[in-house]
Amino acid sequence: MDAYSTIRWSGDVDGHLVLLDQTRLPTEIVYVECRSVSDVDQSIRRLVVRGAPAIGVAAAYGVCIGIQEATGLNAEAMRLAINVTCDFLEGSRPTAVNLSAAINRMQSVADQLGFPALLGPRATSSKFDSHNVTHNIKVARRLLAEARAIDSEDREMCAAMARHGADLLANLPDGAGILTHCNAGALVSGSGDGTALAVIFELARRGKRLHVLADETRPLMQGARLTMWELMQRGIECTLICDSAAAQVMREGRIQAVITGADRIAANGDTANKIGTYSVATLARAHGIPFYVAAPTTTFDLSIAEGAKIPIEERASEEITNIVDHQVAPHGARVYNPAFDVTPAALITAIITDRGCISPVAESAIRDRLT
Amino acid sequence: MDAYSTIRWSGDVDGHLVLLDQTRLPTEIVYVECRSVSDVDQSIRRLVVRGAPAIGVAAAYGVCIGIQEATGLNAEAMRLAINVTCDFLEGSRPTAVNLSAAINRMQSVADQLGFPALLGPRATSSKFDSHNVTHNIKVARRLLAEARAIDSEDREMCAAMARHGADLLANLPDGAGILTHCNAGALVSGSGDGTALAVIFELARRGKRLHVLADETRPLMQGARLTMWELMQRGIECTLICDSAAAQVMREGRIQAVITGADRIAANGDTANKIGTYSVATLARAHGIPFYVAAPTTTFDLSIAEGAKIPIEERASEEITNIVDHQVAPHGARVYNPAFDVTPAALITAIITDRGCISPVAESAIRDRLT
Repeated sequence: MDAYSTIRWSGDVDGHLVLLDQTRLPTEIVYVECRSVSDVDQSIRRLVVRGAPAIGVAAAYGVCIGIQEATGLNAEAMRLAINVTCDFLEGSRPTAVNLSAAINRMQSVADQLGFPALLGPRATSSKFDSHNVTHNIKVARRLLAEARAIDSEDREMCAAMARHGADLLANLPDGAGILTHCNAGALVSGSGDGTALAVIFELARRGKRLHVLADETRPLMQGARLTMWELMQRGIECTLICDSAAAQVMREGRIQAVITGADRIAANGDTANKIGTYSVATLARAHGIPFYVAAPTTTFDLSIAEGAKIPIEERASEEITNIVDHQVAPHGARVYNPAFDVTPAALITAIITDRGCISPVAESAIRDRLT
Repeated sequence: MDAYSTIRWSGDVDGHLVLLDQTRLPTEIVYVECRSVSDVDQSIRRLVVRGAPAIGVAAAYGVCIGIQEATGLNAEAMRLAINVTCDFLEGSRPTAVNLSAAINRMQSVADQLGFPALLGPRATSSKFDSHNVTHNIKVARRLLAEARAIDSEDREMCAAMARHGADLLANLPDGAGILTHCNAGALVSGSGDGTALAVIFELARRGKRLHVLADETRPLMQGARLTMWELMQRGIECTLICDSAAAQVMREGRIQAVITGADRIAANGDTANKIGTYSVATLARAHGIPFYVAAPTTTFDLSIAEGAKIPIEERASEEITNIVDHQVAPHGARVYNPAFDVTPAALITAIITDRGCISPVAESAIRDRLT
């Protein structure tokens, strides 16, 4: 993106993380500085930063923050800092696999470098052991390099995904209507163009005239607040609708394709994404409209056989009962607020990845594409 | 209802209309007094009073208000007042047929009584002609009686509909989940129990244990604000969900039946109701769940062959872009905000009316039941 950056690391190993506060969009552009692991954790929980790839990138940088105080100490302190930070951030949100994948990758890097004090006799592990500190600095540099790699790989994956998706959708008629749910644009990526919207941006770049219909996406309005903002920033024609109007606009013939992002994709192609995605996919099928998922290969979790096994985050009732400070439901109303749902593979026309498109969506085709 | 009344006429022919302000629920119970036709019109437009049967009842009483100043004048003034009031209130909202049906009924009553001054020579039509005034008072009494009849007939229709619906759903298992969209309870009726919720209330009265899932119903949150309130007032187990979670709760096996109200039903059974109803009906079909519409026979409009001909009100963008005073979408965002959609007859398992249930839903069965 040009005028704003979703996630930015400022400085060297002693630097800090700067996040565009997505809870304040679209009315205010405010950046939040994270200088502690708790800052990063809270930013992920409060959805200051959200979207599967972005929370992976943010968590990776979060690990770099978590080790800063330990770098000047001994190797045991460093190891402890890494483990504690990784454990802590992995619990920030449960559904998107990119978070745990990024954390695991950071942990592996540290493990591969080893912890010298733990290899030698205990006595050498003194607090100011210079060998320890030198090694710790090396670990810190390597971890920051890894976080930056996760960030830049994500950017490149977004670009590759956008190209594959635009190729797939090249035959859409001029002026075609595309429905999207939630937000899967540059705001879900560290420095890339995102997933579903990246495909739309690429189509626009190639001169295709499109009309995007954006579901507002209750309860947190990522469609109204973020998708509309990103599309308007880029001059792409767009119209906001209530989630419940998606069926109606399909019936009116306004939609030629549906495209969404994903938070975790199981081995069989079942896809967890923002609550309402399964609804849109079911409605698209009923209206004979193709339904596409755009997701980097990092969003696949081959360790999970099927969608029913994906952990689904349930969020606070207040997201639904109150809007800003305004109470909309009766005091004491019981609420069910799953943040995600699972769209079965059978409803997905194709999954667009950075390594090409998967269609029909089935386990063998997924494994072929990913390995 | 016991503790509150949705619509109440206070006094005699010189009385006024008292409406429970539904825009303030559930946090405040405030009554609005309407003493002019403009008050009634604004109350209907602003959704102080809403729901197909209720706006019919409110408009009928509105006609009684519209003639109050003319009653002491001559017959021409009376005729003018009736015509102007009826024209004015008929335009308050377009989709629910009950509004125009109630207005037409009031107009017919006045027409049947005739206007004496218009029958005799022009010279007799003086401003203070006592014969005129006597007749005008008679017209006013007759119109108030007619409005009261519309009100009480509506109450009786709700009760009959509830009985037929409860008979139809008597075999639901104990603890069954029922999904409803928008609000179709006592708040949509002058003094009755409403439509869809009336069936649920009757089932509860008969000892059936149910769990109602209420769609919040964006943009105006009638489900969150009104349905949850009515259900909680009556001690019926209920849970609030976002509209986009309806598919998910169906998939989880939590829903055994869907029931909604209606704003206008065409001769072939196509049903206009709150935006999102068509979505819920389509999702119910995809999950093999029966979808019921509960509506009094006054909601049918046999003059309209099919749903595509039903006028659909489009409401202000601000209902979606702003919540209370909080801006959620970017400044200048384009919005599509149809207040209603049309569910094709083929998706409706049965229409529950005060004269019994119609199933399968087809033109011949509807005409048989209604005539």
